[in-house]
Amino acid sequence: MNIGIIGGGSVGQILGAGLHAKGHSVTLGIRKVSAEDLAKPRTYAEPLDVWTARTGIEVTTMTKAAAADIVINATSGDVSLAALHLAGAANLAGKILIDVANPLDHSKGFPPALLPQYTGHTSLAEQIQAALPQTRVVKAFNTIAATVMANPGQIGGAHDLFLAGNDAAAKATVAEIAKSLGWVHIVDLGDITAARGTESLLPIWLRLMMTGGPLFNIHVQRA
Amino acid sequence: MNIGIIGGGSVGQILGAGLHAKGHSVTLGIRKVSAEDLAKPRTYAEPLDVWTARTGIEVTTMTKAAAADIVINATSGDVSLAALHLAGAANLAGKILIDVANPLDHSKGFPPALLPQYTGHTSLAEQIQAALPQTRVVKAFNTIAATVMANPGQIGGAHDLFLAGNDAAAKATVAEIAKSLGWVHIVDLGDITAARGTESLLPIWLRLMMTGGPLFNIHVQRA
Repeated sequence: MNIGIIGGGSVGQILGAGLHAKGHSVTLGIRKVSAEDLAKPRTYAEPLDVWTARTGIEVTTMTKAAAADIVINATSGDVSLAALHLAGAANLAGKILIDVANPLDHSKGFPPALLPQYTGHTSLAEQIQAALPQTRVVKAFNTIAATVMANPGQIGGAHDLFLAGNDAAAKATVAEIAKSLGWVHIVDLGDITAARGTESLLPIWLRLMMTGGPLFNIHVQRA
Repeated sequence: MNIGIIGGGSVGQILGAGLHAKGHSVTLGIRKVSAEDLAKPRTYAEPLDVWTARTGIEVTTMTKAAAADIVINATSGDVSLAALHLAGAANLAGKILIDVANPLDHSKGFPPALLPQYTGHTSLAEQIQAALPQTRVVKAFNTIAATVMANPGQIGGAHDLFLAGNDAAAKATVAEIAKSLGWVHIVDLGDITAARGTESLLPIWLRLMMTGGPLFNIHVQRA
């Protein structure tokens, strides 16, 4: 499929390269595409000029990446609404937006907490859906490390990818994309309010990462 | 072991009966032990006069239950600090307190959200530990339905009980109690701040319960 990724950090780079390797047509959009921006050092990720030379994936503007058929929000949750505003509501109208972001507050150091304005009786994904009513938002991939998103087979045994969204056809398309990456256990949690659950997994994800590294995922075991 | 449970709701009743069935000496403490209180209808649970007649477990005051060797906080999270104050800090000094409570806000209907004063860079368990510095608080059992706490074998396959607490010996004792109930996979998440992670599992627990009932648990699968 023709997929545009918004955000040039580790999630955008690793998920983008994984989708490209499986034959999808991928572009990656950032705020400004100057030589200086492309060469900028990035946390847990390559400078984008190195990444684009290595992968062959085009780095472009957010607006151009949002012109793809399917768009992935791989920005930091604290700036997602602003970034998607730059990408353009008109660009995103009618499309599937896969929201991978987590609303983390890094202001008090590590580990971050969830930003209070996106918790309780709301979530980041719900606020994105409200800001883009013409777009079919599917929360997915936000409960695992980027390397696990792109290569789920590296985790032993059954483990789950959670989907939340209001549009059943959009979730079916996201499930197809996930299957192309190797995902087997895909759990539909229902409408977009289920993102309250998946975004709230971040505190235990962070703790499990601190105690044993990021190569893990959870599996829901029923009676 | 000699275990006192604070709280007469479904968690206290089901976990208490499960521990009693495995040979532990159990008492259950509530705020007021009048005939009227014992006969009061309870949500998802029996009136305590029916329960005590059926199980043979003594229902007493919170203060008396807190005189046991090991104490379990099975109150609603929104009133836990007040209930433990009634149970008495002196009673609880030096003891292991297993905190099973979740800080849920039921004021806006179902599903509840987490109470904001216990989220972010804090948790209910941390606030209980701060209020009872002489007590060894272990957060445990709060991520599963009461029936699963007491009978983990009804869930197929591997699934996890999470522990968080500052005292390693206290966690080892809680692990022994869990093993007596049939728990096999016990995951020590570290100090009491890890309760931020396990308490934050409630939103996805509620969603999974809404989509398939309460007989489930999660398993952490590592690479």
